[in-house]
Amino acid sequence: MHIIYNLFMPRPICPLLTVDAVILYEKDKLVLIKRKNPPFQGEYALPGGFVDIGETVEDACIREAKEETNINVKITRLIGVYSNPARDPRGHVVSIAYLCEPKTKKEKPKAQDDAMSLEIVPFSKVPSLKLAFDHMEILKDSGIIL
Amino acid sequence: MHIIYNLFMPRPICPLLTVDAVILYEKDKLVLIKRKNPPFQGEYALPGGFVDIGETVEDACIREAKEETNINVKITRLIGVYSNPARDPRGHVVSIAYLCEPKTKKEKPKAQDDAMSLEIVPFSKVPSLKLAFDHMEILKDSGIIL
Repeated sequence: MHIIYNLFMPRPICPLLTVDAVILYEKDKLVLIKRKNPPFQGEYALPGGFVDIGETVEDACIREAKEETNINVKITRLIGVYSNPARDPRGHVVSIAYLCEPKTKKEKPKAQDDAMSLEIVPFSKVPSLKLAFDHMEILKDSGIIL
Repeated sequence: MHIIYNLFMPRPICPLLTVDAVILYEKDKLVLIKRKNPPFQGEYALPGGFVDIGETVEDACIREAKEETNINVKITRLIGVYSNPARDPRGHVVSIAYLCEPKTKKEKPKAQDDAMSLEIVPFSKVPSLKLAFDHMEILKDSGIIL
């Protein structure tokens, strides 16, 4: 079926698709990374990344959280969909943001993959940080900061 | 910025992105179309379509609703994100679904563009219909049917 449709219908060009994970930690803390790569290299950001073909957005969120923070997460709810064409300097990238928590109490947070470093930040400190992309807006929508 | 990044970073290949509009009509009715084109040609479906680069997903939803039903809609809330890789026979297509209502009382529903015909269906009749894609699941998540 896939091949038949694609022979007759050219693949539309859509915005790229990413996920972002708001990972709550020890009730009043948040897991942030510092970005290893451009854009916003060296800045604080939510763990996240591009959705692969063949995985659900929820699976992409769980995979990216694990890849960048070493934390196995479970998703508690959808926060929102972020699609301002100017939100990513690489071009139009739509992100789906999820509220998450560590799957077990034995998770060992550790920066890896696209994360240069990792910080567990109390909610109260978050508003004073400078975050990449529209991640502060996502955090406001998540309800963990005002 | 766009050009510089794209010279060094190949464009990732992500799932395609669509929107679907659950348009409520006269309190207890729903606007459905019959699809003019494959896949699911001739079957009932929610109005919707691909998101263009440069438009927000909300704008895409409003545009597609207008193109297919002639109704100017306003979005009342996000219903969910649908990303099962098997939900669309054309390949992996992620859809963002919104609950909508006509913007004014003067809207004139009319099938056009990718819609072969249009029907205003009472909520009570919806469960007995066969719908394209995972649109029945979207309607269940919207809360208008059980």
